[in-house]
Amino acid sequence: MADERKKSEDGITVKKEENFSEWYTQIISKSEFVDYTSVSGCLAFRPDGYFAWEMIQKSTNALLSDAGINNVYFPLLIPEKLLSKEKEHIKGFNPEVAWVTQTGNSKLDERLAIRPTSETIMYESYSKWIRSWRDLPMRYNQWNSVVRWEFKHPTPLLRSREFLWNEGHTAFATKEEAESERDTILNIYLSILNDYLALPGIIGKKTDSEKFAGAEASYSIEHMLPDGASIQGPDFHMDGQNFSKPFGIKFLNKEGKIDYVYQNTFAISTRELGVMLSVHGDNKGLIIPPKLARIQVVIIPIYNNDSKDPVIKSAKELSKRLSEKVRVFVDDNDAYSPGWKFHEWELKGVPIRIEIGERDIKADKVVVYRRDNSKKQDVKMADLTKEIESLLEEIHQNLYDRALKLLKSSIHEVHDYPELKKIITVTGGFAEAPWCGSFKCEEKVKNETKGKISNMPLHIQEKSKGKRCIVCGEEAKHMAYFAKSY
Amino acid sequence: MADERKKSEDGITVKKEENFSEWYTQIISKSEFVDYTSVSGCLAFRPDGYFAWEMIQKSTNALLSDAGINNVYFPLLIPEKLLSKEKEHIKGFNPEVAWVTQTGNSKLDERLAIRPTSETIMYESYSKWIRSWRDLPMRYNQWNSVVRWEFKHPTPLLRSREFLWNEGHTAFATKEEAESERDTILNIYLSILNDYLALPGIIGKKTDSEKFAGAEASYSIEHMLPDGASIQGPDFHMDGQNFSKPFGIKFLNKEGKIDYVYQNTFAISTRELGVMLSVHGDNKGLIIPPKLARIQVVIIPIYNNDSKDPVIKSAKELSKRLSEKVRVFVDDNDAYSPGWKFHEWELKGVPIRIEIGERDIKADKVVVYRRDNSKKQDVKMADLTKEIESLLEEIHQNLYDRALKLLKSSIHEVHDYPELKKIITVTGGFAEAPWCGSFKCEEKVKNETKGKISNMPLHIQEKSKGKRCIVCGEEAKHMAYFAKSY
Repeated sequence: MADERKKSEDGITVKKEENFSEWYTQIISKSEFVDYTSVSGCLAFRPDGYFAWEMIQKSTNALLSDAGINNVYFPLLIPEKLLSKEKEHIKGFNPEVAWVTQTGNSKLDERLAIRPTSETIMYESYSKWIRSWRDLPMRYNQWNSVVRWEFKHPTPLLRSREFLWNEGHTAFATKEEAESERDTILNIYLSILNDYLALPGIIGKKTDSEKFAGAEASYSIEHMLPDGASIQGPDFHMDGQNFSKPFGIKFLNKEGKIDYVYQNTFAISTRELGVMLSVHGDNKGLIIPPKLARIQVVIIPIYNNDSKDPVIKSAKELSKRLSEKVRVFVDDNDAYSPGWKFHEWELKGVPIRIEIGERDIKADKVVVYRRDNSKKQDVKMADLTKEIESLLEEIHQNLYDRALKLLKSSIHEVHDYPELKKIITVTGGFAEAPWCGSFKCEEKVKNETKGKISNMPLHIQEKSKGKRCIVCGEEAKHMAYFAKSY
Repeated sequence: MADERKKSEDGITVKKEENFSEWYTQIISKSEFVDYTSVSGCLAFRPDGYFAWEMIQKSTNALLSDAGINNVYFPLLIPEKLLSKEKEHIKGFNPEVAWVTQTGNSKLDERLAIRPTSETIMYESYSKWIRSWRDLPMRYNQWNSVVRWEFKHPTPLLRSREFLWNEGHTAFATKEEAESERDTILNIYLSILNDYLALPGIIGKKTDSEKFAGAEASYSIEHMLPDGASIQGPDFHMDGQNFSKPFGIKFLNKEGKIDYVYQNTFAISTRELGVMLSVHGDNKGLIIPPKLARIQVVIIPIYNNDSKDPVIKSAKELSKRLSEKVRVFVDDNDAYSPGWKFHEWELKGVPIRIEIGERDIKADKVVVYRRDNSKKQDVKMADLTKEIESLLEEIHQNLYDRALKLLKSSIHEVHDYPELKKIITVTGGFAEAPWCGSFKCEEKVKNETKGKISNMPLHIQEKSKGKRCIVCGEEAKHMAYFAKSY
């Protein structure tokens, strides 16, 4: 009774540890999480992929809202003049802007940029809305998509031309207030990564040459991919008065004087989904962390012609009971064998599979299979809901623990320049080393290794005291993580 | 102690009943719900405006999800070739497409359209994803923004060049299944309008000349604006196989034969917010239906220098207690008088105001003011939460009842052609009349009145039996609502 559907019968044909990039391509196209479209670099998010993003949105949004941030929405299109108002900003974004030049059959007088980020369109409004210290802080956020035509060779989720994100844009009366927002936001992002994506990350400051176009200082959460390359996650930028001055966002302060606001911006994007798939997935396919899984439990009824009806009936009863607590689906498609379905749902990364057959029903139990560690166990029907709930938590914790272990094992404290180069170019992972802070040393590493400083982790800065720069031997000012970068 | 902020001191200076269009412009710019930007036709949604939209999204989404529809996300950009695949579709949208022709400093080989709607980019994927009847129905939805450069004179929310919406795109194995989705979706939209926006609407079929570009049949929910013009609300389009054939969305049916899917699309947009503001607002400003109000209750402490601290303290305690059940805000800004604040919050349309002063505290009560009918009442502290909750419900119901009365009073059964013309051109509102179904009669009305057929309401179609067309006198096939249209 097989039909035409063939999409994933062949499974993943390369090993993650042998060829990460080909493995990634395969899991992306075969798992039905996202799909390519005819616009290079722009993806279709299928139900599983978009559900995961919606959960990230929802949970991040709740924390941002608790922190006092309101959601807004600004136009997709930005007039060229506005985008060009802050010099570093336009310099950074100009090469990758998608320009609208025609509408219908008419040529526009001024080109309109599809937002690569929304500072410029938002701050024009801020300058109208902010008059007094009483209007501050103004802390707004929006969820949208942005377009950056930056990658010659896009990679789904990790390097996209269109991606979904949140962009927070806040304005404060004083520099101190603006600065105090940094830890709040970075901790919100880190908790989302930990608690939902089961991902750890390294919080640190970016170097001046790596900071956001227009920022005074940028902070990031960096991840390590399985192939030894680092990738930037959520970030937080302190813009100081860099935008408020050209945009005229001024206010009457408590002393009755005119001042310019201090601003921050911050973002988490759909790139995180790519990191999540990369880190957790294995040679059978995706492993979706339970909280982001649209289907957390798949029930596979196992039957022959005689037992079909009672087994499917039991499976559906089970599903109904479980659905009060978890997201569950019964795969009773009889065009495929149970074995085929096992592979299919493993490929899609559903955290738990329940197998139920005639003998299980008689014994008043089911077989429960964990996607994360391939372990099977019998579970009594009476205990099932409770057991599934606790297993989902265990799976989350196990994924996080594994990812943390991987991250930790990728950090190499290096003691001389050759060692640094070897980590970046051969071993992979982060090379932890003292750095003098000079652009010259940073560039030297870039030129000689094609790697760069991912960030300067906040938690190890103390260590730089008394150390010498790994490149030039001068006094170290920072501890930095050097790595190949995505 | 007044500061520079002046935004709304002057209030609304024209009367809604005398000059609707100027009144609308004023409430839009003074209420801080949305704002103009430097891109004509593209708005900034401020916290109150975006909150209302988020509530519409959330509630619609819950109902769509219960109905079995999954959320997805497709690219913003559509290659010209793809957009042009269905002939009626491109003919309809071509004049209003915003085209990306350059990225960075390079000219693109093929123009990319910013989605005016996503049929074409989605259906290319559907043709890959759908193979067998087992993959059907495929019922997907996305929330995004679309761009249509269609209006010479945009009006905020009502006629926007960029607007936010949901677009549902479903595919079925049979025409019957596809058709049976119509009532489900239209009823979902109507219930959102009724239960959240406090708006009634008229469900009906569009005429062939007014249907969606590419559809076989379109259905809409029509509203009546206070100036006597109708405006189209949420809609539902039956596309039959019009898209599945050019896009090759075919599948193996249960009989083992290749067939093309039957499709529907449907949408609700931010235009509804404009209708909501238009219908409920009054000469003091907005009136936001309670369920969509970011702030449902504003507390205004009334004090002199001596009573300031205890009154503000009481106000904050009150707020804390209320916040468990409703969205509440204390306006303790001492740069403004209570009277100024009353006007300000009336302008913003907050459903309930609580006034609390020294005497109220002594009497263990507060003054509660309803924005919808301007009535004030004393409420005992002990009863407050319960009373506020029930008042919010009453306010919603009152807004809906008023809107329904307005809608009903705008419908005029007409008996001859001069009467029809008079309603459309002078009286305003819907002229209900029998129609033969011919394009000729429809065009005649258009040319002679600048009005058109809003839709053919489903609930009055029976009435057409035995009637004669109001224009030509031939046998009537439909009952139609004729009106000036936005």
